[in-house]
Amino acid sequence: MSRLWEKGLPLDERVLRYTAGEDHVLDARLVDYDVQGSIAHAEMLNQQGLLSDDDCKAICTGLVELGQQHAAGDWQIELADEDVHTALETRLTKNIGDAGGRLHLGRSRNDQVLTALRLYLLDAVKAVKNSVHGLHESLAELEQRQGELTLPGYTHMQQAMPSTVAWWAGGFAEGFADALDGLDSSCRRMAKNPLGSAAGYGTPGLNLDRDATTRKLGFEVTQTPVTAVQLSRGKAEAGLLFELTLLMQDLGRLASDLLLFYTQEFGYIALADDVTTGSSIMPQKRNPDVLELVRGATATVQASLQECLLIVAKLPSGFQRDAQRIKAPLFRGIDLTIESVDIMAYLISRMEFQPENIRLDDGLYAAERAYALVASEGIPFRDAYRRVAAQYGGKQQPD
Amino acid sequence: MSRLWEKGLPLDERVLRYTAGEDHVLDARLVDYDVQGSIAHAEMLNQQGLLSDDDCKAICTGLVELGQQHAAGDWQIELADEDVHTALETRLTKNIGDAGGRLHLGRSRNDQVLTALRLYLLDAVKAVKNSVHGLHESLAELEQRQGELTLPGYTHMQQAMPSTVAWWAGGFAEGFADALDGLDSSCRRMAKNPLGSAAGYGTPGLNLDRDATTRKLGFEVTQTPVTAVQLSRGKAEAGLLFELTLLMQDLGRLASDLLLFYTQEFGYIALADDVTTGSSIMPQKRNPDVLELVRGATATVQASLQECLLIVAKLPSGFQRDAQRIKAPLFRGIDLTIESVDIMAYLISRMEFQPENIRLDDGLYAAERAYALVASEGIPFRDAYRRVAAQYGGKQQPD
Amino acid sequence: MSRLWEKGLPLDERVLRYTAGEDHVLDARLVDYDVQGSIAHAEMLNQQGLLSDDDCKAICTGLVELGQQHAAGDWQIELADEDVHTALETRLTKNIGDAGGRLHLGRSRNDQVLTALRLYLLDAVKAVKNSVHGLHESLAELEQRQGELTLPGYTHMQQAMPSTVAWWAGGFAEGFADALDGLDSSCRRMAKNPLGSAAGYGTPGLNLDRDATTRKLGFEVTQTPVTAVQLSRGKAEAGLLFELTLLMQDLGRLASDLLLFYTQEFGYIALADDVTTGSSIMPQKRNPDVLELVRGATATVQASLQECLLIVAKLPSGFQRDAQRIKAPLFRGIDLTIESVDIMAYLISRMEFQPENIRLDDGLYAAERAYALVASEGIPFRDAYRRVAAQYGGKQQPD
Amino acid sequence: MSRLWEKGLPLDERVLRYTAGEDHVLDARLVDYDVQGSIAHAEMLNQQGLLSDDDCKAICTGLVELGQQHAAGDWQIELADEDVHTALETRLTKNIGDAGGRLHLGRSRNDQVLTALRLYLLDAVKAVKNSVHGLHESLAELEQRQGELTLPGYTHMQQAMPSTVAWWAGGFAEGFADALDGLDSSCRRMAKNPLGSAAGYGTPGLNLDRDATTRKLGFEVTQTPVTAVQLSRGKAEAGLLFELTLLMQDLGRLASDLLLFYTQEFGYIALADDVTTGSSIMPQKRNPDVLELVRGATATVQASLQECLLIVAKLPSGFQRDAQRIKAPLFRGIDLTIESVDIMAYLISRMEFQPENIRLDDGLYAAERAYALVASEGIPFRDAYRRVAAQYGGKQQPD
Repeated sequence: MSRLWEKGLPLDERVLRYTAGEDHVLDARLVDYDVQGSIAHAEMLNQQGLLSDDDCKAICTGLVELGQQHAAGDWQIELADEDVHTALETRLTKNIGDAGGRLHLGRSRNDQVLTALRLYLLDAVKAVKNSVHGLHESLAELEQRQGELTLPGYTHMQQAMPSTVAWWAGGFAEGFADALDGLDSSCRRMAKNPLGSAAGYGTPGLNLDRDATTRKLGFEVTQTPVTAVQLSRGKAEAGLLFELTLLMQDLGRLASDLLLFYTQEFGYIALADDVTTGSSIMPQKRNPDVLELVRGATATVQASLQECLLIVAKLPSGFQRDAQRIKAPLFRGIDLTIESVDIMAYLISRMEFQPENIRLDDGLYAAERAYALVASEGIPFRDAYRRVAAQYGGKQQPD
Repeated sequence: MSRLWEKGLPLDERVLRYTAGEDHVLDARLVDYDVQGSIAHAEMLNQQGLLSDDDCKAICTGLVELGQQHAAGDWQIELADEDVHTALETRLTKNIGDAGGRLHLGRSRNDQVLTALRLYLLDAVKAVKNSVHGLHESLAELEQRQGELTLPGYTHMQQAMPSTVAWWAGGFAEGFADALDGLDSSCRRMAKNPLGSAAGYGTPGLNLDRDATTRKLGFEVTQTPVTAVQLSRGKAEAGLLFELTLLMQDLGRLASDLLLFYTQEFGYIALADDVTTGSSIMPQKRNPDVLELVRGATATVQASLQECLLIVAKLPSGFQRDAQRIKAPLFRGIDLTIESVDIMAYLISRMEFQPENIRLDDGLYAAERAYALVASEGIPFRDAYRRVAAQYGGKQQPD
Repeated sequence: MSRLWEKGLPLDERVLRYTAGEDHVLDARLVDYDVQGSIAHAEMLNQQGLLSDDDCKAICTGLVELGQQHAAGDWQIELADEDVHTALETRLTKNIGDAGGRLHLGRSRNDQVLTALRLYLLDAVKAVKNSVHGLHESLAELEQRQGELTLPGYTHMQQAMPSTVAWWAGGFAEGFADALDGLDSSCRRMAKNPLGSAAGYGTPGLNLDRDATTRKLGFEVTQTPVTAVQLSRGKAEAGLLFELTLLMQDLGRLASDLLLFYTQEFGYIALADDVTTGSSIMPQKRNPDVLELVRGATATVQASLQECLLIVAKLPSGFQRDAQRIKAPLFRGIDLTIESVDIMAYLISRMEFQPENIRLDDGLYAAERAYALVASEGIPFRDAYRRVAAQYGGKQQPD
Repeated sequence: MSRLWEKGLPLDERVLRYTAGEDHVLDARLVDYDVQGSIAHAEMLNQQGLLSDDDCKAICTGLVELGQQHAAGDWQIELADEDVHTALETRLTKNIGDAGGRLHLGRSRNDQVLTALRLYLLDAVKAVKNSVHGLHESLAELEQRQGELTLPGYTHMQQAMPSTVAWWAGGFAEGFADALDGLDSSCRRMAKNPLGSAAGYGTPGLNLDRDATTRKLGFEVTQTPVTAVQLSRGKAEAGLLFELTLLMQDLGRLASDLLLFYTQEFGYIALADDVTTGSSIMPQKRNPDVLELVRGATATVQASLQECLLIVAKLPSGFQRDAQRIKAPLFRGIDLTIESVDIMAYLISRMEFQPENIRLDDGLYAAERAYALVASEGIPFRDAYRRVAAQYGGKQQPD
């Protein structure tokens, strides 16, 4: 029998499908992290005299092998396994015998899943940051190529004051740098070790050393008291999704700018052929689908944050199975962000501003002119403003 | 003492402020509806022999007077009243004596507030529809004025095929007509009479005639069983907010189009001076703030829907005080929608397309050319498409 | 080459993966509907003299076969196909030759996808309704079995007044009946025929009969003007998701009640073994996971609505590729709702109230007692209330 | 004339009401911060030789006075002022003459409002933290009073393993400590100085020293490039609202626990009279309204976050007036959080667990028993688990 809690009772297949959901698919990315968590747990049990050297060795070797075999595609988590934790323990016990049954001493799936998830999240942050670095490079190269080019600076979508490609790109680069800082901050909540809190009430009568697994797994602190662990479900997850939402918002705003610049009426940029697509009805079209899909992706990531927050909202304390539903939006948000950042980095690396089309209205220099009046005549800015404004009176629309 | 449930216990001012919240302000718009509901209730009690003719008359006359005095500004709901219901009953009892204490027989604030709220909502729908009709008129006038004018039709924000001002405005007009239908549908949930369900479990031992108040108040059905009433809290409210969200989305998309058309690079429209504003730093600017604020208002209305849904989410059945928090986002969403629709109707009534600036690229006619090839040569559309596409090969970006 | 818009330009695999996304998986459910839409389109072209009898017959027969083969598992949509529309047209042209290339005359993927989607949605509503009927039956059977049983009626989660199992179940049954009405209303927006609007600007020079496809496909009206079609993307979808959100909220509240009733402290209900699960650490536990997952599912469906609304928000009019991202949350919301309603129907069919554990506090009868005083002594309700209240003074917490 | 950008054009009152909205009310809390920002700006202008000593002194003195008079209630922002910035500058110019017109040199309302807002936010964080400290104290005192008391620890809302009041309160205390850390993190985005970025494109031809105002105002860094400033609108705001959402989620979960404990069926806690309210129909009731309103408040704060994110979503870069709409949800979220934390601190300070009602099922000790078997017999945990489980077989529901 594969399910940990099976006690001989009949179990309706349909209930299994509802309760296990997509975990057997989603959990594939957690295999390595669950292996790491289990090894740390086994070694700690061994140090505390709760697991013999031989059993510990058998367990650790067995887990490493299962991890490698999974990576090689030799096995995958089945629906009947329900989740990564049962999948691994079942196979381990089958491979190494009774010792496998000793691994779960002093832990629960409640702390086990959270351990794997937080270890995964810490790596996911690295992956997102890596993608953002790529985007930063694309923007820096664009600055190298065309940074000096004058662009209209816009407020209210109206030509306002002179800007440059370097300033335009630099504004977004600061936004993405800010996202990197935000991603770093989001690690704080991931770096709390849940292992050893068991079902949320510790392990009465067992002498565990929770700080040992904290050190082994690279967590920053041991999360205490044990009751804090399940109460914090969803916080590290939401924290990451929030930072991804802000990051995606900048990406979506970048897409909005480029979609504007790419209209025929602006005509400020050219996009590479391979990031545009054709139309099934209009032979002349080259559409900026990538940019639209990036803009649309912001909605998906923001909704993922919302979903995560909603799942946890108003629940009584202590573990609630609702938390299982966090995985889907979490992984969705992470994957889509990485893909969107990557493709945007690629798009920008092949994008070109078209200087001959860039329109620079005279009004862009009106503020500078008012400043010059202040300097030359010593009049208050408000008076200079009024004098310059008079020159534009009545003909400002649409300029 | 003004609060209904006061039983001589000390009550901390701070608790009052937290629990009563802004109700004394928000409830001002409910005075008339609570008066209507109370009169219908009193008359029904009278018919059922539970209230004497004299008491009934005193109550009804007293309530009408209080309603008129409130409308005249002679009194307003105080924080100490907590809400409209206590405010009215307290003043009524003060004015007419003991009879006032007979009015609350067979009802609870739970069904009372819902009665007033649903009566209000039915009127709010009418008010929103009235505003939408005004917007429809503005669009129709625009079609009259400039409907024949050719505009580029866009897909992917790219010039795609020929359109006209009439088609452009007509697309939105259909959207707003759809909103009117949606608003009508939303009345179904408002038109269920909650009165007589009392706290949600009826009035054991009392012989009420709930259908009588249904008829008196113009509701369509009596909501039964009594337990259904509190479970439905938030549904009629969310139903309206959902329709307002869709309506605002079309309004926001209209604003997005106009903001695009109003850029210097498009230059397709002129806006009246009084719907644009200046800049504190750039003397040349006339900014389309109204359009931006309409676009931003879509967020507020959508978040109001979200807030309403969130308040009710996961609550056990039976009345929960959480429901009180629905009023603020509900009123916020209704008011902002009406204001936004009204101002947009005004803006459009004074807007002009600028034919001399409208750019019509040759590519707009490519699909038509392919259709002509199919007609003249009898070739499959796919082949015609390829032949026309070849004419645009390589130079499509950004056209 | 399989992609409709391929014109000999190199296309980066990565871009394809980003732009096509999961459509090749998601679109499987649309095959039948796209076949229906295409057949109606071909027949209309034939009637209008735009497609020969032979070609029309070849196309229709070919499409029916492809639909059957897909249902039989003989082929599936590949990533390289991008979506169901290209997958079908490519295979059709391969099977029947040149005639396949004549099918796309007078339409665009923009109206084609929307046609398939709305036909699908109309069926999805039927499927959801079917599930809700099942739930209704479960509740009715429960009323049959144990409806007479007295339950405390709660307000503020406090024992308030007497209720019964029939009333408790009946309140929810009304909620679900309301959901059925709401689902019916949501069909209005699905029943507008988009076909023939092409890319959103009609088919200049081609004489189509849009009303013919409206009749053939069972739509209620032809959506006009053509520009209204793309502007309405997301509305029918959001309309359904909104109704599903309300339905799930009632389901979630039902789950909240049952989770409360299932606590040891209440002990009001027994659940069947196969809808509860064990614990990996606590041998004594039988957990109500199904109920928790249903409660959690409300968050997912509500977030799907939010995602759908967000995708469309603020977009300029005319087709925007962002709309493609609506499918995922839409299907997610529909599937999860059906699964959740079904499992809840099953759970309730095997649930039993435990009369011996149901606690009925004396306070439940206080309101009735006050009513009796009004009747026997003719005093105002407020006075009766105060006299009964005095009997409970000081010992009400926690009763 | 009071509005900065007034250039003699007629302005419709209705437009003013729509565009100015509630700013004249909302901005009251920004007066001090705008005074601070303006003084720092004036002093910097003076240092750079752009403002004479006399003018600088007149401006600074005048601003300080206006701030004091506002605090004393001598004046308030009027609708006709539109916002705090115009209100102050208009009054300043009226009071000190021409020098007032020199203050706006080198800045725009765009950077001015952001400066005031960020200074305010940094203080708002302090205020929230202060409230959280009070809640921490209440929980600590509860631990002092009754921490030793055994409570059932719950998972899936089922009695699971033994816990204590100290553990229960300590879990929440860790959550609130985590919120304090999160609030600290949220300051990073507030501590970037926007002043001197003007409308988002700097001040060409003017020699400002942005780092000087950074130091004067206590910001940590000068935000550069200038284009980054407007792109970051909404991020610091959303960052705070996100932390408030997490904080409120814990508060809401605390309320959920207490609402459960306060049911008659649990009866685990007694609440003070002044945090409960009566019923208008049921004389026996003492309702935990405060807890319900706190639970409901979580929805409002989460929706505020959502609203803030939505307002900014998809906007092109550069200032957009939509941003004005952020203030309302921002202030709403902050105020409601502080009020909710404060009242919860008060409620807990007067709450008492009722040891005589606390039910401790035998099953709570099953896990410990399995651990003891492992220790005494050396068998694998899985075997011990099965042996203990057998003792509970068949009678687990509802225990």
